[in-house]
Amino acid sequence: MQQSKVSPPVIRRLPKYYRYLVSMQQKGISKVSSSELARIMGTTASQVRQDFNCFGGFGQQGIGYNVDVLLGEVSRLLFGEGEKLSTILVGAGRLGTAVSSFLTKEVNGYRLLAVFDTKDALVGEELNGVPVRHIRDLREFCEQQKPQVAVLCVPREGAKEISATLVELGIRGFWNFSHYDLSVEYPDVTVENVHLGDSLMSLGYRLRND
Amino acid sequence: MQQSKVSPPVIRRLPKYYRYLVSMQQKGISKVSSSELARIMGTTASQVRQDFNCFGGFGQQGIGYNVDVLLGEVSRLLFGEGEKLSTILVGAGRLGTAVSSFLTKEVNGYRLLAVFDTKDALVGEELNGVPVRHIRDLREFCEQQKPQVAVLCVPREGAKEISATLVELGIRGFWNFSHYDLSVEYPDVTVENVHLGDSLMSLGYRLRND
Repeated sequence: MQQSKVSPPVIRRLPKYYRYLVSMQQKGISKVSSSELARIMGTTASQVRQDFNCFGGFGQQGIGYNVDVLLGEVSRLLFGEGEKLSTILVGAGRLGTAVSSFLTKEVNGYRLLAVFDTKDALVGEELNGVPVRHIRDLREFCEQQKPQVAVLCVPREGAKEISATLVELGIRGFWNFSHYDLSVEYPDVTVENVHLGDSLMSLGYRLRND
Repeated sequence: MQQSKVSPPVIRRLPKYYRYLVSMQQKGISKVSSSELARIMGTTASQVRQDFNCFGGFGQQGIGYNVDVLLGEVSRLLFGEGEKLSTILVGAGRLGTAVSSFLTKEVNGYRLLAVFDTKDALVGEELNGVPVRHIRDLREFCEQQKPQVAVLCVPREGAKEISATLVELGIRGFWNFSHYDLSVEYPDVTVENVHLGDSLMSLGYRLRND
């Protein structure tokens, strides 16, 4: 398995393969060809084969893929042996509330340990069953619980300072909804940006210029 | 201006240039070089020059870019002459509530006309000042108001059917948060996907395999 040099676009397509394979398995489909997968994915059969070749193959030329086997392989790539990534969420506003549900879903591979906010009024409330704590307890909590991942749902202004603290406290992965571009300052940390405003502006560009 | 063949990665970087240029303008910075922009963007000077060349340049080799001029050009690409894209949002749950604030922000170039949901209990409530209507009024509303863009914050199960209706009603752009891959079925419609679950899984892959 030669996973070290898998390119970002391939990594971005893996969850999509996963979703389609789950849905095939649920429908009782046992075999799928690369051209069939390509059609559903909106890509080409050669792309599908190339993608799987990054991970060492998964199938034999000409006979198609076994859905169960393929799903097993893709799941193992995405979720390892099933151990959850321990996670905290910073910012319990509307966006934080909405995204917390993705972290408490069994299927995604994360375990949400705690939510932090600066507002006293939110402390003690729960987001999907996870208690909101005051940001002043962040350091002690992280030193004790050693979470691996942080979800940043804070405004840009606060994001720079909180990121520095979190990186220092050993967080090595960020799901970043703030407009602060973390990865420029911390190249060794793994960052997945969800810049919703940027996404909306890109859509606008395409609608206005296509 | 040769905008017709601008590649998706360049389009995705435009909002980021926009954000950085706004922040430079606010700080009173009047000139910026491609290497300076590259450093902030986490890319290379040659990439920055290539990006701007897609739109015909924006500057003279060696003397840097005028921040006001550059911001003006990037703004015009993203927002046209300032006319807003009329938009509806379908699904007033937690995610819909959270993303609605991006649509009512002046800066993003959209005007949110109405929100639709299937739940009677939500009808008459407001999301950022925009009333929630029952989904049964969608057709009549669209026929009268002719919105251009729809934001889909519905579960996957409902997304296929509602997309068909919306495309038929003349919607030509989607900000799609559902897990239904619209663009496979409607290649002529402009779709910007925000698959939060996929993003989270990709982060997991990178953390587990890097």
